[in-house]
Amino acid sequence: MDKLLIEKLASIVGQDFIIDDKDDIKAYLFDEVELEYRPKACYDVVVVKPSSTQQISEIMKLSNDEEIPVVVRGGATGLCGGCTPVKPSIIISMERLKKIIEIDEKNMVAVLEAGVTLMELLDALKEYNDLSFPVHPGDEGAQMGGMAVTNAAGARAVRHGPMRKHIQGMTVVLNDGTILKLGGKLVKNNAGYNIMQLIMGSEGSLAVVSEVVLKLYPREDYTATLVCPFPTVEGACEAVMDVLRSGTIPLAVEYMDKRLFVDTAKMLGLDWQAKDGAADLLIILSERTKPRLMEAVKVIDKICRKYTKLPLLYGEKEREQEELLLVRSAHYDLIKDEICDSFDMAVAVGSVPDFIRDLKKIANDYSTYTNVIAHIADGNVHNDIPLVDGKVPEYAKEMKEKMYECCFSYGGTITGEHGIGKIRIEDLGQQKSEREIRLMKDLKKVFDPKNLINPDTVVSI
Amino acid sequence: MDKLLIEKLASIVGQDFIIDDKDDIKAYLFDEVELEYRPKACYDVVVVKPSSTQQISEIMKLSNDEEIPVVVRGGATGLCGGCTPVKPSIIISMERLKKIIEIDEKNMVAVLEAGVTLMELLDALKEYNDLSFPVHPGDEGAQMGGMAVTNAAGARAVRHGPMRKHIQGMTVVLNDGTILKLGGKLVKNNAGYNIMQLIMGSEGSLAVVSEVVLKLYPREDYTATLVCPFPTVEGACEAVMDVLRSGTIPLAVEYMDKRLFVDTAKMLGLDWQAKDGAADLLIILSERTKPRLMEAVKVIDKICRKYTKLPLLYGEKEREQEELLLVRSAHYDLIKDEICDSFDMAVAVGSVPDFIRDLKKIANDYSTYTNVIAHIADGNVHNDIPLVDGKVPEYAKEMKEKMYECCFSYGGTITGEHGIGKIRIEDLGQQKSEREIRLMKDLKKVFDPKNLINPDTVVSI
Repeated sequence: MDKLLIEKLASIVGQDFIIDDKDDIKAYLFDEVELEYRPKACYDVVVVKPSSTQQISEIMKLSNDEEIPVVVRGGATGLCGGCTPVKPSIIISMERLKKIIEIDEKNMVAVLEAGVTLMELLDALKEYNDLSFPVHPGDEGAQMGGMAVTNAAGARAVRHGPMRKHIQGMTVVLNDGTILKLGGKLVKNNAGYNIMQLIMGSEGSLAVVSEVVLKLYPREDYTATLVCPFPTVEGACEAVMDVLRSGTIPLAVEYMDKRLFVDTAKMLGLDWQAKDGAADLLIILSERTKPRLMEAVKVIDKICRKYTKLPLLYGEKEREQEELLLVRSAHYDLIKDEICDSFDMAVAVGSVPDFIRDLKKIANDYSTYTNVIAHIADGNVHNDIPLVDGKVPEYAKEMKEKMYECCFSYGGTITGEHGIGKIRIEDLGQQKSEREIRLMKDLKKVFDPKNLINPDTVVSI
Repeated sequence: MDKLLIEKLASIVGQDFIIDDKDDIKAYLFDEVELEYRPKACYDVVVVKPSSTQQISEIMKLSNDEEIPVVVRGGATGLCGGCTPVKPSIIISMERLKKIIEIDEKNMVAVLEAGVTLMELLDALKEYNDLSFPVHPGDEGAQMGGMAVTNAAGARAVRHGPMRKHIQGMTVVLNDGTILKLGGKLVKNNAGYNIMQLIMGSEGSLAVVSEVVLKLYPREDYTATLVCPFPTVEGACEAVMDVLRSGTIPLAVEYMDKRLFVDTAKMLGLDWQAKDGAADLLIILSERTKPRLMEAVKVIDKICRKYTKLPLLYGEKEREQEELLLVRSAHYDLIKDEICDSFDMAVAVGSVPDFIRDLKKIANDYSTYTNVIAHIADGNVHNDIPLVDGKVPEYAKEMKEKMYECCFSYGGTITGEHGIGKIRIEDLGQQKSEREIRLMKDLKKVFDPKNLINPDTVVSI
């Protein structure tokens, strides 16, 4: 990387906040994509760690003047290579933008610098009597800016929806260094085209988000975790739809293949209590009061009785709940060494059983299997392609395309929450028409005419 | 209007669905803006009434080829001149796109043609046991397409938010006639830039929406309407914020100047029961069950007791509730002949009392008054400038600009729900930087390089 450029960057952020040593840089190149599918990183990069929006603005001006790309790095918990540089670039690491600018208790709003992690926000909120933030993409190392630009969701989206529903304002830095304040502590705002909504989901390819204004909510501290075993996936899904129609909305409704529940529990030295049934749901409830929680449990139990005779298992004690949730979240450790590509398709909730059946059939056609883990109440299905003898099988691309086609036949999308990043750009072309992709490219060019902001992410221009 | 063009349009929709008679056209030129502030309509227009997305596509191709603007007309219930043609144009009236394509009970989704009115949707949902759609901008003549592109909200946004939160899919027609299906029956979808979210709030200036996919919800049929009189606006607002923090979210929380409640009731031959206090709130509750409703009333009563000693009035019987809501909705008949410009600013909820006080003071500085009606729990304040001797006062523009400046000093927006349309484009320049306006213009050019889709709406290019 050009010495003069590094000097200019150092004059903005200070020499201490520049990394250009090849070994140290390695920690700034990847996210959580499976090894086999990581984009090929460019090592000719320099990492800068600004501490303010103003410094980001100066970096963006420099990027624009010198025509060198920037890649913003948040918590790097992404799953599609969004923060991996593929060209010589300035990597803007947001780790120093950690200020909790304001927790406005009255308006129930948090104003945060983009580098604040979910864990830091949740910690800060503990000091407040009755405030919470509901979006939880699984990894609390995720940063607010990253969660905003990827429209992060996660299991709790059933009750609360993705980031898009909770962002009221943003400070963003444009390609030329202009700082824009979008929205604010505003519940309603219809002043012109909603640029903020476009930046949500742009995965850092349109502008740099340096601050976010988030809506906060009263806590729902009374929780219970239910395991509901069903004889069939169809029955489980019917129950889920009945639950959603009941108006008793769970925090999360998680489906995993039975063997994943059983084997993950075993791996953890636990015993999966639901011995019978072919399709177990893990339903997490979260309510404001104990009576509300009890009411919710009753509603759900009654609905499940329509579709299963198997006993519903109920964790209310903290330890019981923790064990159940651990089984859900630790399943990845069980399968991570046996899979290569993993997916994030979504369909209408009612189509989930047919979709899962078809996915299993496609895998079977290739004499392999596919693990299914689903945020079932959101129609969001994660599945995968297993390695063969430790290698990506030759048929992997073809098998993926067949699964996508199946998804489209149900009106689905290739990504419910993970996004496109760098590894699904070609796949997006399978879902979207050329005309729509062209529209996306033209939108990219409006924000980034020189193609310098996280290039080759979402679209390639 | 060119005869040949009319013939071509007739060949698309049929001669019976063309209006080019000057007298008949008049009914297709305006929305609900006050007379004094209506944009000057262009009468050199032809109205076409397509019956399908395909016909709209052909009209858009024609518009693009012949370089003649199109203006889409929905229910024309807007308040900023969005559907008024200001250049020789084709007016696409959506009145024949009335098909309720599907009410999908299982997935709780409605697929509707854009010309379906809110009333027609609500009527259709009556046939279903337990499905509702919550957004209500006040006038049930509003059409789904219009509600989608304006991101309509209304009083019930307190509990349910604006249209943006409930739209899962759209069919849109682009400038060149391309038909795009965006989203679908999908709860989660992160596949590329969210063009759909950009079209929401674009007020018909980026593309034509021909179908929408809406999320439906279980009914909340147990309703009550409370009148809570407070000694001060500050007390009323503190109570509102406490209510929001309690997690008991009302359907609507409406504030009006006391004299508007009292005089509107008188005009209707009713008596406004809240004799004392200076700031009355109308709180509408809507819950799934009677016990939930009773619980909500108790929570709200308890909170109000902290800020007022005045008795809370409670309408539960249908007739009592109807009377209260009538007073709220009929206030406009009381003031419509005395005002010229009316506003739609929004600030953070906690800033509402100071903002209202400042607005009153600004009016006072001009030796006039301003009526205040607020969706107070959303921080959305409607106020106005009165006519003087039946005319727009000379100071009207200056007074408006002072009120805007005051709004900005609280971090507010000039429009919480009504939008920019044709009458607030200059005002938007007061709120937004040149750079942000340029960005909006560039976005417009991506969708509409020839400036033919509802030109001079939101932005002028």
